[in-house]
Amino acid sequence: MKIKEFQKRLKKEKIDLAVLYNMETNIENVDMRYLAGYSGYGFLLVPAHKSPRLFVPLLDIEKAWKSGTRFTVIRKNFYEKIKKYSGKPKVIGVEERKFSVYAQKKFRKIFKNAKFRDISPIISDLRKIKTDEEIRTIREASKITNQIMNSCIGNLKRFKTEKEVYNYLRIECIRHNAEPSFDFVVASGRNPATPHHEPNEKKISRGFCVIDFGIRYKGYCTDTTRTVYVGKPSKKEKELYNLVLSAQEKAIRSIKLGEKFSGLDSKARKSLGKYAKYFIHSLGHGIGLEIHEEPNVSADTQDVVQNRMVFTIEPGIYMIGRRGIRIEDDILVLNGKAENLTKVKKDLVVVK
Amino acid sequence: MKIKEFQKRLKKEKIDLAVLYNMETNIENVDMRYLAGYSGYGFLLVPAHKSPRLFVPLLDIEKAWKSGTRFTVIRKNFYEKIKKYSGKPKVIGVEERKFSVYAQKKFRKIFKNAKFRDISPIISDLRKIKTDEEIRTIREASKITNQIMNSCIGNLKRFKTEKEVYNYLRIECIRHNAEPSFDFVVASGRNPATPHHEPNEKKISRGFCVIDFGIRYKGYCTDTTRTVYVGKPSKKEKELYNLVLSAQEKAIRSIKLGEKFSGLDSKARKSLGKYAKYFIHSLGHGIGLEIHEEPNVSADTQDVVQNRMVFTIEPGIYMIGRRGIRIEDDILVLNGKAENLTKVKKDLVVVK
Repeated sequence: MKIKEFQKRLKKEKIDLAVLYNMETNIENVDMRYLAGYSGYGFLLVPAHKSPRLFVPLLDIEKAWKSGTRFTVIRKNFYEKIKKYSGKPKVIGVEERKFSVYAQKKFRKIFKNAKFRDISPIISDLRKIKTDEEIRTIREASKITNQIMNSCIGNLKRFKTEKEVYNYLRIECIRHNAEPSFDFVVASGRNPATPHHEPNEKKISRGFCVIDFGIRYKGYCTDTTRTVYVGKPSKKEKELYNLVLSAQEKAIRSIKLGEKFSGLDSKARKSLGKYAKYFIHSLGHGIGLEIHEEPNVSADTQDVVQNRMVFTIEPGIYMIGRRGIRIEDDILVLNGKAENLTKVKKDLVVVK
Repeated sequence: MKIKEFQKRLKKEKIDLAVLYNMETNIENVDMRYLAGYSGYGFLLVPAHKSPRLFVPLLDIEKAWKSGTRFTVIRKNFYEKIKKYSGKPKVIGVEERKFSVYAQKKFRKIFKNAKFRDISPIISDLRKIKTDEEIRTIREASKITNQIMNSCIGNLKRFKTEKEVYNYLRIECIRHNAEPSFDFVVASGRNPATPHHEPNEKKISRGFCVIDFGIRYKGYCTDTTRTVYVGKPSKKEKELYNLVLSAQEKAIRSIKLGEKFSGLDSKARKSLGKYAKYFIHSLGHGIGLEIHEEPNVSADTQDVVQNRMVFTIEPGIYMIGRRGIRIEDDILVLNGKAENLTKVKKDLVVVK
């Protein structure tokens, strides 16, 4: 929680009041968790000059109480109560990518003469630099991820179908008090050529098998991929695997403070040589409260490597109808050094 | 998929083009699934007068292919490609509650002189009346839900903590190729007084224990709650339980075609007598692709009971710091009759 820093930024940008909300069932606005420790339904008001306050329904009183943030329980007329509390802010900060047109209409009605400004960049800026507490949690999450991934690969022979592997990973999450951070990929045979393949119930086919797995633990995400080989790989296949591996390792070795992420992305593509055209996504992405967040680890960014950033490095090649390979690690930058949080063997594992 | 009916409504309301999108990782826009069978990332364009088309990233090509809807794969400049495809629509339909201020800015740029209109009511209107196929799927989902709920209650003695029950339910979901439709509630002792209590690792306490469970199966949600008693209930407690049960059963018996949901809601409150003040949420909610959708089953609605609607009936009483009781069934209205899809015993189960 970096509420003080957030308020400092609000003052600097002359925003009187930030309004965050979650009106969806079952979807959390993680920025409310970040700023106020709250994961329920309702509104978070952060005035630049006084304490933040949650407005929550009675249903979520327990979550509000646990958050440690001051709160008001309201049963009806959310918008009117918020208006009453807020006074007359001239400039209101909202999250443009999360704020719906519907919500904007509602807020325009209660704050008639206010200007609306986007606060997403402020929150992303804060979120991409992790606090000590966040780093501790991410380390714990990585430890669990490594355990599950290692045991999954070690036991791969036991599983008959992609779906069995997928279910194993889901059950292991539950056993470790975690949840999936995204919909896992288990792709064998020709399926790894589709990065977002959905696991099926057919027998695991020979060839590369991509396992993309990550957990959400105490709110924080991990994301890691290994590609193993089922059957006996040809010389060509081993070469392809090692090409992706060496591109990944070179990219990780190139991580230095101040280095542009776009530079890392282009280095990885260069390492892939003529196979770069099969690398159809970006080199990686930031991770934290969300599975995809800042920093932007791609060709289209001015972001540079900074201390306390956590992000993935995951080159891959995808030859539609033939094969696919991806190798993904989670990297923490601390004291100027890139630390690989993913401790799962990277030499090609062959399952017979 | 009711794409033809949707297009008919677009024509009627003089909307040239509907634009739906999903730009979030890991969150599905279920309306895209509903109209185009697609659950990935990207855009869905539905012109009033020609076939709908998806615009998807290469990553999600498999999902697009499976959808059966025509699609275009695009790697960059999504918005420009969409502009090119769309011609010059004068009136564009968007989902105001899902459309972000950010997306609106982007679309205003590419459709400079177009007017934007909200299509959410059209989609809700369609979605609240289920097709034969949807009803079949919801029946399958209910069958699985009943199995899991019955085995959970039958085995309740085995579990030491709320968390163990919670994890059992999550694992059973996986075993049945389903996923949780929301974050389950397992609340014992004083915890049932909080409707959204998060399960803890303490020993299950004596008193009422509320288990609120539902699955998402082939996209469709169920939602059901039972309250059991751990220990020996007092006469007063049995009376309270039976009061809630009779309010629930009366409400279900009152379901008739054309009946106002607000009327059902008020009947349930009346049945609760002086305890109605402890019933702090609405009588129920529609279920389908989302866990909360239309019809609106509350005091604040003009919605009336129609054939092919599916919704919950779930009165409860919550006495903060003391106890809570909720009983929830899923109801399908078909051929003018209310059919209770939830087949889990409702007499008070006592676990010793």
